[in-house]
Amino acid sequence: MDLKQYVTIVEDWPKPGIKFKDITSLMDNGDAYKYATDQIVAYAKTVDAEIIVGPEARGFIIGCPVAYALGIGFAPVRKEGKLPREVIRAQYGLEYGSDVLTMHNDAIKPGQRVLITDDLLATGGTINATISLVEQLGGIVVGCAFLIELTYLDGRKNLDGYDVTTLMQY
Amino acid sequence: MDLKQYVTIVEDWPKPGIKFKDITSLMDNGDAYKYATDQIVAYAKTVDAEIIVGPEARGFIIGCPVAYALGIGFAPVRKEGKLPREVIRAQYGLEYGSDVLTMHNDAIKPGQRVLITDDLLATGGTINATISLVEQLGGIVVGCAFLIELTYLDGRKNLDGYDVTTLMQY
Repeated sequence: MDLKQYVTIVEDWPKPGIKFKDITSLMDNGDAYKYATDQIVAYAKTVDAEIIVGPEARGFIIGCPVAYALGIGFAPVRKEGKLPREVIRAQYGLEYGSDVLTMHNDAIKPGQRVLITDDLLATGGTINATISLVEQLGGIVVGCAFLIELTYLDGRKNLDGYDVTTLMQY
Repeated sequence: MDLKQYVTIVEDWPKPGIKFKDITSLMDNGDAYKYATDQIVAYAKTVDAEIIVGPEARGFIIGCPVAYALGIGFAPVRKEGKLPREVIRAQYGLEYGSDVLTMHNDAIKPGQRVLITDDLLATGGTINATISLVEQLGGIVVGCAFLIELTYLDGRKNLDGYDVTTLMQY
């Protein structure tokens, strides 16, 4: 299946010059959404993932069905103030300034094999913060899976040493 | 399976006097997450759902694996400014003021049978706005499924005429 036919390219969003890759049209199609998920499920098996971790909110859309298909748990990474119990934090850079991602401090067990999922690999900033959270809790990042990779941003370079798989490249 | 044993009650969050029902501990457990999802999948079959709709972000956690299990699509409902293409809007009341939910204007086809999912049925405000969005697009809301119902808030009264199922009641 050529997944790219289900991705909508939105010109000048969120700002002029950006060609945004909109995956809602892919998710809207049951066959495409299942096919894409099954590719990541197959990858998760090869890296022997024991739990899925994804940053809000599109990381949930990718990772939750993968967790369900494997019968394993899903641990959400959220912005500051969204998780109700004690959290750990990781900062990541934005174009101007920085933001913080959090995770419950009992979300991952030490030694647990973690697959990180998100819709898009751009510069890798969000995923680096997510990796930091998992590793603060003693988890082992066995892989990072994305629907889409923006190869010209070279996000893989920022994920050096980690196993990365992407289903579509632009 | 007694799902309540996997829900963490967090006292005084997000403010004093509230006993927050935290489902991240349920999702963290693969067996519990799969069991809960399978209950909603079974319900989705009885109402013959053709697409799943869920409000961000916890509605994604519930609805996405249900869509995957059924091989049908998932359409996200998001806060203003998060969806890249042309949207429709619905307002909903908060304790102070109001907020807006949006959906892509092609997310639902007229006549499509829609199951709405979310983690929690409280007063029903978010879900009423979600129903409004689906119906603006000509969709038929065949059911609303939640992990948790706060029965003392009587949210079902605000969803009068719609089929509602909940897995846990408090």
